[in-house]
Amino acid sequence: MRVSDIDTPAIIVDLDIVERNLRKWQEYCDQYGIANRPHIKTHKLVELTRRQLELGAVGITCQKIGEAEVMAEVADDILITYNIVGRAKLQRLVNLARKVRLSVTADHPSVVKGLSEAMRNETQPLSVLVECDTGFGRCGVQAPTQALDLARQIADSPGLQFGGLMTYPTSIPQGTDFMSEAVRLIQQAGLPVPVVSGGGTPQMWEAHKAKIFNEHRAGTYVYNDRHTVETKAARPDDCALRVLATVASRPTPHRAILDAGSKALSSDLFGLSGYGMVLGYPQVNIVRLSEEHGVAESADGPLNWEIGQRVEIIPNHVCPVSNLFDQVHVIRQDRVETIWNVAARGRLQ
Amino acid sequence: MRVSDIDTPAIIVDLDIVERNLRKWQEYCDQYGIANRPHIKTHKLVELTRRQLELGAVGITCQKIGEAEVMAEVADDILITYNIVGRAKLQRLVNLARKVRLSVTADHPSVVKGLSEAMRNETQPLSVLVECDTGFGRCGVQAPTQALDLARQIADSPGLQFGGLMTYPTSIPQGTDFMSEAVRLIQQAGLPVPVVSGGGTPQMWEAHKAKIFNEHRAGTYVYNDRHTVETKAARPDDCALRVLATVASRPTPHRAILDAGSKALSSDLFGLSGYGMVLGYPQVNIVRLSEEHGVAESADGPLNWEIGQRVEIIPNHVCPVSNLFDQVHVIRQDRVETIWNVAARGRLQ
Repeated sequence: MRVSDIDTPAIIVDLDIVERNLRKWQEYCDQYGIANRPHIKTHKLVELTRRQLELGAVGITCQKIGEAEVMAEVADDILITYNIVGRAKLQRLVNLARKVRLSVTADHPSVVKGLSEAMRNETQPLSVLVECDTGFGRCGVQAPTQALDLARQIADSPGLQFGGLMTYPTSIPQGTDFMSEAVRLIQQAGLPVPVVSGGGTPQMWEAHKAKIFNEHRAGTYVYNDRHTVETKAARPDDCALRVLATVASRPTPHRAILDAGSKALSSDLFGLSGYGMVLGYPQVNIVRLSEEHGVAESADGPLNWEIGQRVEIIPNHVCPVSNLFDQVHVIRQDRVETIWNVAARGRLQ
Repeated sequence: MRVSDIDTPAIIVDLDIVERNLRKWQEYCDQYGIANRPHIKTHKLVELTRRQLELGAVGITCQKIGEAEVMAEVADDILITYNIVGRAKLQRLVNLARKVRLSVTADHPSVVKGLSEAMRNETQPLSVLVECDTGFGRCGVQAPTQALDLARQIADSPGLQFGGLMTYPTSIPQGTDFMSEAVRLIQQAGLPVPVVSGGGTPQMWEAHKAKIFNEHRAGTYVYNDRHTVETKAARPDDCALRVLATVASRPTPHRAILDAGSKALSSDLFGLSGYGMVLGYPQVNIVRLSEEHGVAESADGPLNWEIGQRVEIIPNHVCPVSNLFDQVHVIRQDRVETIWNVAARGRLQ
């Protein structure tokens, strides 16, 4: 089967590019002594989790228990960077912690309390890292002193052990200042801080400059996307995933309709103009999306695309795109090597 | 099982509201003699397709062959409002046309040519409607004279029959002017125009004023959403689908993090401010989404939400939300009546 035989819209993943992306990052981590703990949310594939671990990742990162349950098939060291809250999820967490080396994050005393109540009768304590908000404005304790308080609570809680600190994304210098101060306070209180975990693909090649961190969680680097290219963390040639689309309509000389809409590309703009980069057509912009339609226009006049013609699109943000397809077509050159099921797609809980 | 037993994030669908929405619209269509051909993209459920047909829908609308293949289990009259292009899809179209009364749209001579080549040896001709662009700027012929040319080509093509005209959305008066002129030209050329099909939920209660149309395709009305409420086509009480979410983090007194992000709510803004309406909290806005996080803030100061507390969110645009979940929890009052599989989810082709 060749790429030209794949019906559209579909995802193609260029395995040579994936391999190069994974190796390059692992070599960088090895060079600087950074533990590589990739976030699997970008690919959601058992096969690429396995490959990341083979190449030297210390473990993986998941955002949801459902993702971790899927990846436990091939990974035995999993960090879930999310407050686990509520009886159903805590029970699944306990079950999973019996199978793999599991760690989670927490940013509030009530979350730590829930984790401890669930884990208190387990033989192996659960490692809990304190999530720190170092400027992103999402989850996380707001000050190093709060990190200290939570670290103490974790260390004192039955069934738990203090695993270190975590933030997203790594930011220099304000993030490193926050984390350094938190490490200092916690060590001063007599607690070791085994892991200081940073994250983010746009920030990954600067990770060695943020010396307080000894671990990095990158997700998007496996595929890269238009946003990664925009942040200079990758070039268009490093983009391994493309959405294959067909020109479905040519209502006017200046407008073409692609069969890839928000159900294929997601609506994520990420501050960019338009909904993806069409390979080989730098003058074309996907100006609007409906669920099943992408409206493409050219900046320099009429478009010579014909109905039935196919194009490849690098999406703005590749992670949600993986969540929209049940399968990816794995290619080398123009040959389809295999088809992988997106095993962790739709694992919302 | 009660609603409080459902883990989050999850979709709940209030069946009493669905039933009221379906009946109200069917009664309107009956009153004005409009054929009701609901678009199933909103719910993607076999069960609600069946119910829409039971209540009097003449058939259904799908956007993709894959959706139609799923719905052929319960529907025997299906319109696919999309140019069907390429060998693989045309073969599936032929197979489907042998099972159900199928019609499609086309907006270009090359699309009609492809349909005819695929259908020429079939005993039952395929009904093809001409898609008209009456101002939306997506697919469709650009002028009534083009509609006439395409209608003639369809009527002259082996395996095809001219089925009428279609546009999206119904617009008054420019859309009705376009369609009236196209009907006049085509009838003058000696061709009957059996169906003139309009669409859209925001426009549905005005459909009787656009007298040239004899069919309406509404999708969102089954559930409604924040956008429908904004356009005054529904009230908040008419919104049948809610995303159930849990407060996962309270990093600051003014910020709460919900476990529903773009993977649960989609990134669709639809011109609105924020990513959904939190029931019972009109002062709260979901100001930002990551894939697994919704950042909620209150306009009037600190929020008193606690970690673990649950909320219900009416999404901006409900159709892509249906595409993000494998299942919906069907409720009446606070009881879960059943769980339905979103059978046509992810049918991209």
